[in-house]
Formats: sequence, C-alpha cells, structure tokens
Amino acid sequence: MPSTAALQLTPQGRLRHFLTTEGLPRDLMIQILDSAAQFLGDTPRDLKKQPLLKGKQVVNLFFENSTRTRTTFEIAAKALSADVVNLDISTSATAKGESLLDTLKNLEAMGADLFVVRHNQSGAPHFIAQHCTPDLAIVNAGDGLHAHPTQAMLDMFTIRQHKGDISQLKVAIIGDIRHSRVVRSQIHALHGLGCQDIRLIGPGTLLPRQGLAGTLHDDLREGIDGADVVICLRLQKERMASALLPSEAEFHRNYGMTLDRLAWAAPDAIVMHPGPINRGVEIDGALADSEHSVILDQVTNGIAVRMAVLCQVMGVEVGV
Amino acid sequence: MPSTAALQLTPQGRLRHFLTTEGLPRDLMIQILDSAAQFLGDTPRDLKKQPLLKGKQVVNLFFENSTRTRTTFEIAAKALSADVVNLDISTSATAKGESLLDTLKNLEAMGADLFVVRHNQSGAPHFIAQHCTPDLAIVNAGDGLHAHPTQAMLDMFTIRQHKGDISQLKVAIIGDIRHSRVVRSQIHALHGLGCQDIRLIGPGTLLPRQGLAGTLHDDLREGIDGADVVICLRLQKERMASALLPSEAEFHRNYGMTLDRLAWAAPDAIVMHPGPINRGVEIDGALADSEHSVILDQVTNGIAVRMAVLCQVMGVEVGV
Amino acid sequence: MPSTAALQLTPQGRLRHFLTTEGLPRDLMIQILDSAAQFLGDTPRDLKKQPLLKGKQVVNLFFENSTRTRTTFEIAAKALSADVVNLDISTSATAKGESLLDTLKNLEAMGADLFVVRHNQSGAPHFIAQHCTPDLAIVNAGDGLHAHPTQAMLDMFTIRQHKGDISQLKVAIIGDIRHSRVVRSQIHALHGLGCQDIRLIGPGTLLPRQGLAGTLHDDLREGIDGADVVICLRLQKERMASALLPSEAEFHRNYGMTLDRLAWAAPDAIVMHPGPINRGVEIDGALADSEHSVILDQVTNGIAVRMAVLCQVMGVEVGV
Repeated sequence: MPSTAALQLTPQGRLRHFLTTEGLPRDLMIQILDSAAQFLGDTPRDLKKQPLLKGKQVVNLFFENSTRTRTTFEIAAKALSADVVNLDISTSATAKGESLLDTLKNLEAMGADLFVVRHNQSGAPHFIAQHCTPDLAIVNAGDGLHAHPTQAMLDMFTIRQHKGDISQLKVAIIGDIRHSRVVRSQIHALHGLGCQDIRLIGPGTLLPRQGLAGTLHDDLREGIDGADVVICLRLQKERMASALLPSEAEFHRNYGMTLDRLAWAAPDAIVMHPGPINRGVEIDGALADSEHSVILDQVTNGIAVRMAVLCQVMGVEVGV
Repeated sequence: MPSTAALQLTPQGRLRHFLTTEGLPRDLMIQILDSAAQFLGDTPRDLKKQPLLKGKQVVNLFFENSTRTRTTFEIAAKALSADVVNLDISTSATAKGESLLDTLKNLEAMGADLFVVRHNQSGAPHFIAQHCTPDLAIVNAGDGLHAHPTQAMLDMFTIRQHKGDISQLKVAIIGDIRHSRVVRSQIHALHGLGCQDIRLIGPGTLLPRQGLAGTLHDDLREGIDGADVVICLRLQKERMASALLPSEAEFHRNYGMTLDRLAWAAPDAIVMHPGPINRGVEIDGALADSEHSVILDQVTNGIAVRMAVLCQVMGVEVGV
Repeated sequence: MPSTAALQLTPQGRLRHFLTTEGLPRDLMIQILDSAAQFLGDTPRDLKKQPLLKGKQVVNLFFENSTRTRTTFEIAAKALSADVVNLDISTSATAKGESLLDTLKNLEAMGADLFVVRHNQSGAPHFIAQHCTPDLAIVNAGDGLHAHPTQAMLDMFTIRQHKGDISQLKVAIIGDIRHSRVVRSQIHALHGLGCQDIRLIGPGTLLPRQGLAGTLHDDLREGIDGADVVICLRLQKERMASALLPSEAEFHRNYGMTLDRLAWAAPDAIVMHPGPINRGVEIDGALADSEHSVILDQVTNGIAVRMAVLCQVMGVEVGV
C-alpha cells in the first residue's frame, strides 16, 4: 500500500489529493498558503470570488455529520463557481448496505470531479483516493483520529499572517492531544514549516502515549511559558463519559485559558481555537473576545485556504 | 437598546435590515411594493429573474424549521443569482452549545452578505442585527410571537394589486390574533399605509389582551360586515392542546369562512390566507378555490416581495 | 380520466410530461436516446454540460426518500444550468395536513418550471400532471409499484450502447418481478423498441400474477439461456419480512447471478443492475466487477438520459 504522503502527489510532485499534512513538501505548503492569500480581500472579512472551478462538480461526501466543516467547503466551492452536491451518506445508499467502494464508483460515474470526504474511520479518504479514477481528486475533511489537513493549513495561514516565519516560533497546543486529528495535522504542518518548539499540554490521560513531535506538559504554566502561539482545542464532551476527564470545571481550573494565564506566554501571543468554542471551559469568553484572539480570522482564512486547496488538487493555477 | 424600527434604517433612511413593519416609513413600504412589481411577469405565475445579487452570499439561518418560508427565500435569492447556503441550525453548532452570537460571528467570518433568520424567540433577528458587522444585512423570516414582516408586505402587495389604495379599505383578520406574529406585522403595515378600518376577529381566548390598532370582534358577522379584504389566519393546532380552543369543528362553526358567509362582506371582497390552508377548518375548500380567493397570488407575490426586500437591504436598486 | 400515455404528450405528439414508458411512441423513445447520446463525452465517465435550461427552476419533489435518484436528477439539472430546489416533503407542508393538490398549486405559484416527483403512491405524478398549469412539466422519478420511466430509459440506452438494435435481442430480468416498478417500465420500453424475447425470472411468489409482456420462469438456467442481456433487480429486503422470500442465502442459491452461471447466457452477454447492488445476494462481486458488467455505464448514462428528458419536457432542443 502506498503511503498517504506519496498517494497525494503526482509523479511530478503536484498535489493531486489532499489527505494529510504528514510528509507534505514545504514548498507545496507554501504554495497553498500563498494562493490562499490571493483570495483574501482588503478588509478583514472579505473574500474574493473567482470562477476558477466553473463547470466542475464538487461532491461533499459526509459520512460523519459536520455542518460547520461542510458549510465552509460548500462556501469555498461556490465562491469558485463550482457546482456543489451535498451528500449525507448516513441517509443514503450505504445505509442500504452498499460498500464504500460501490458508493465511490457510483458517484464517479455520475461525473463528479472532486470529493470532499469526512469519515469517522481513519484512512477512509486514503482508501477512496487509492481506488478512484485518475481524473478525480479527494480532499480529506477529517478522518477518524488520523488527520484534518485543511484545518491545519488554515491554522498555519493564520499563524503566518499574525506572527510571520513559523520556524522561529514557540507553539503551545492545549487539550485532548491524544484523541485529536487536528493536533496530528498541526504538528506535521508545523514540523514541515520548520517549527522547532512545539508543546503539547493536557492532563496525563489526554497526552499521547507515544511521541508526537513535541514536548509533553501536564502543567499549563510550564507549557505555555513564553509561547508565541497558544492553540486551545475543543473539549470533546464525549471524552468525559469515558472517564478520561473528571469534569468541565476541573478541566477549566487546570487547563482553561484566561487573560491572566496568557501573561505566562509571550507578550504579543495569539490565541487560536478550531471552534466552536465552549466559553468558560477550554477558553474564557473575555480572552476569546480579546485582541489576542485570532479565532475569527481562522474562520475567514479557512474559506480562503479551502479555495486554494480545491484549486490545487484540480490543477487550476491561482494567479499570484 | 435601539428600537427595532431605528435599527433597520441607515442614518440616511435606507432599509439596512428588514426586521419589522412597525414604524417603517410609508415611502419605504411603497418602494418595496413598487420594486416587487418589477419582478412580476405578464402572466399570473410568471416571475422575472435578474442577476442583481450575482456574487452575493445569502445564508438561510433557520433556527426553527419552516420548509415553506425557507423555500420562498431560497427561490427569491436564486432568482437574483445569489449563492444560497441553507443552515438548519438545530443540527448544527448551536446544538453543540455554541452561543447565538458565536454562531453569528462565525458565519460572518465565512463571508456571508445577508442572513435570512427564522427563530422561535422574539427579538432574535434584532439581536443579530445589533451585533453583526456593518456590511451584513439581516432579514427577519419570522421571530417568535413578534413579527413576520415579509409575510405582511406580500399581503400588502396582494391587497394593493386587487383593491388599490389601502387607506380606503376595510380589512378583517380572523383567527388566533393573540398569538400571531403575522397579524402584528400586518397591522403595522396596514397602519403605515393609512388603513383606517382594521377588524380583529376571533373567540375571546384568542383576541389580544391589550389593544393592537384595530377593533375587536368575537362575532364573525359583525367583524366582516362590509369588509373589502378578509384575511383568514392558519389555525395552529397546538393552541387546541392548550385548551384555548375547544375543537376544529367548533372553530369552523363560529369562525370558518365560507362562500355563504362572505356575502356579509363587500360584494367584491377578496379572501386571503398565509397558507398552508386547513380546508374545512379556517376556510372552506369551495371558497379557497373561488374567484374571491387570492391565496395563490399571495404565493407568487411572496417571491417578488422577497426579491425586492433582498435587493433593498443589499443596497441594490431595482430598475423601476 | 385521460390515460397516462395520452396525458404525457402534447396534441402535436411532443413529450410534455414524462410519466411512463407505457404507450410511449417509438420515435419519442429514440429521440430521448439520441439526445442523451449528445451529453456523453469522449471518455467513459465524461458528461458534457450545456446551459440549455439556464434560468429554469427545477423542483425535486420527493415524497419518498431516495438520495440516489434525487442526486442524479440534481446533477442532471445543474449540468444544464437550471436552478434546483430540493424539497423533502415529509418534513414540509403536507406533514401539516396540506393536500397534495394544495402543495402543487403553491409550488406552481412560486414559479417552478419543472417538477421531478417521487411518491410511494402509484399514480401521484399522473395526478399532479393532470392538475398542473399548462406551463409546468412533470417527470416521474418513481411512483409506488407503477413506473420508473427514466430508469427504464437509461437501461434502454445502455443496452443499445453495448448491443445495438434492441428488437433483435433476448433480454432476461431476474428478481422480484411482481413488486418492481422498474420492471414494468423496462418491459414497456423494451416492447416499444420492438424487443420480441423478454424473460421474467424469479421464485413463483415474486412472479407477476397476471401477464406482463414476457415469458415467466422460475428456473434461472432456463430463463437466461442464450440471453444477450441479463438484468438483475435489487432485492428489497422488506419482501423477506413479509415471508415472500425465505432468506438472502436461499435467493442467492437459486437466483443469484455469478460468472459461472452467466455461461448459460450468450457468450458476450452484458449484466445490468439498477443499483445499489447487494454483493453476494442478487449478484456476485466478481461478476459485478467483470467486463460483462455495464452497471457503472448505467449510472453515467442515467445522468445523460435525465438531461435529455428534462430538455424534452421543457421543449428545449438538444443539438444532434
């Protein structure tokens, strides 16, 4: 089986699918970030539409419900003038016992050009990319505990936008590191962009058992000491049911980010969160609304980065 | 807190949001009606499409399910070449505990230009309009017991289309006056257009406790005597569960409109209904299908009026 | 009541609605097949988009859930640049007690040009076509046990594409013949195109009680002997609950198609299936994936045939 890193590139090294940030060449990452920048307008929430994918058919293939992520891809595709078909697969053919491969082959036969795939099983987008026809592109919109590469790239974009060269930064990530596909993709992207100082912070039960590329900290103060970037993860409440976490209140007491605690980080540190935020749990409302917070920039950048990724895998050049 | 009437206008008096018909200047109402007329074709069910909102992104933000209203806004927006994103919020982020304000800020950051908002809480569209960025417009598609202003404007359009100058007409409204957001918006619009004779008809339990601008009647014959326009409201069956209404049959016996009873009104009276109708409850099938009924005109006019409203709040002029 | 065959034609013999393949003139069928061919590109999964329905509004009116069929119509309509509105009616007005006719009249009044109708009651699209305004077209996307005419036409297209003149072919259909709307439509289409040899195969409990135009066989080998085309139907598992079928395993043992059994048919026989397939029940995976299988061609052809039908009922000529 080819590695995911190899599968997503053409022999010429172009991005053919977007499955993972692991092993993604630095210049491809820079290309994504640079072309995403072309889609941002002059004012903070402005996005530039361009009919670069006119006549292309994008299928949102969501085996796992996520209105938020689905909507961002839908907006990004429509902003490029693509036709978008939303398929909630839980109500569809696979529910009738059709295999994933048969569903794939059927949608291919309907003339799709690009699949945005969300699946609760790690590796599903890889599997689909491996078996699809040569003229179809796959973008991973989150698979199991494996990866969420467009989320990681929008985070890289936001960090670069506010703090410049990523290789010189200290980046702290707080929360359920062990079960987060977002963290996996962030670490690979940070690593690929040369970041030397990554701190992974959380209670021992939520820290990874084997080493991701970063230092582990169960003490928040130690972890964010001098950090330029503090990324709070969304607390998945299901984890608490499984007794890995005692309570929201206790999590907040030990790991919740507040304006006061941010003083432990670098003076001009930015705070990030993939959303939706639980105010008063992983982040205080006052901090989320402060000038340190770039959470809403992440959202706007998410559309721009997804536009860039959709263009790249379709082989469409974005005028830089 | 600014009044809703003030919040929906720019300092120059242009319609910036559309939240309520209460306090809406007469000339703005006339402007909406006149530009809606431009979207009607030459034959009864014909609508003229125009790419006036090309490149704009309209988000249908429905916190309360209403396929019918959502569809009319979707059709209106697409007829103007806008991109439309439908968000059923009950299945979305707020279900994960995100606040309304955070949902709003996130959608803003995705580049939305206009929100069509439906919410079961009175004042939600006002709240959103108060907190949104300056370049976003809000259209109220029904909020709690407060208002349903586009429904009221399509009713005004239909009355003017069939009966001319509204200031000279007698208008009777029958049904659950007390709990109807539609009636509130209708009364404000009728009032603003100079109507002097508004009658509100229903059983005492469904009449308003404090005075809306109209006379109250628990006797149908007295209420519709000589009326030019008879508006039946949809009977909300949930009211019966709460013992405010004894039964459908009893309501029909006392307040159901029939061809016979219409003889009490003016000879050329029109009958209206916001739909969907309960045949044999608030209105007889024979009357709904008669030449007095303008119920289907209301539906077509509803698309035209919503097109006009979408253009107005986006600051796009409709060639008159 | 006019016959469905008559109702779907204009006095000049043009296709005005598409309700059934029963009684459909041969030259109209050929016209559909020929114009569908114009939408196929040069490579196997390629479809040619053309803005032939730009500015038209297509409403997918699904009273019965079918993501697969709905999606194919949505893709076909968008490929013709139509605006598409999806209405899942189970969550809509009829759920509030509105009659089918009132729903129809309301959607008409919203400016729809074409309804694609799926309904679990036989005759619903006929009823709608009978009562709609003259400028609205109805396409049947499956009604009760009655008909599924676009499925039948895509099957005819696929047979002609692979085997040429249908009048010279032996066609075998296997499965639940008695309860299949697909089979009814296929038989009428085959018949209309001059096919002389149609075999209907299945256990006695699933064969029709009164004669469809075909020979009946409860023996698979006898039924497919020398056949040029073998069509497997999807096994509806609900049938088993009703004791008409003992088990999937027993069905497969007696009627499941395999590579081995295909040797009983003509040497170059093709195998078809409307999808989604139950591998190992009505068809073996190895056969479905073999060069005899044209199942995925059916899917691509389904988009092209639906594009052709949408154009025909809208009176839009496809350049041939």
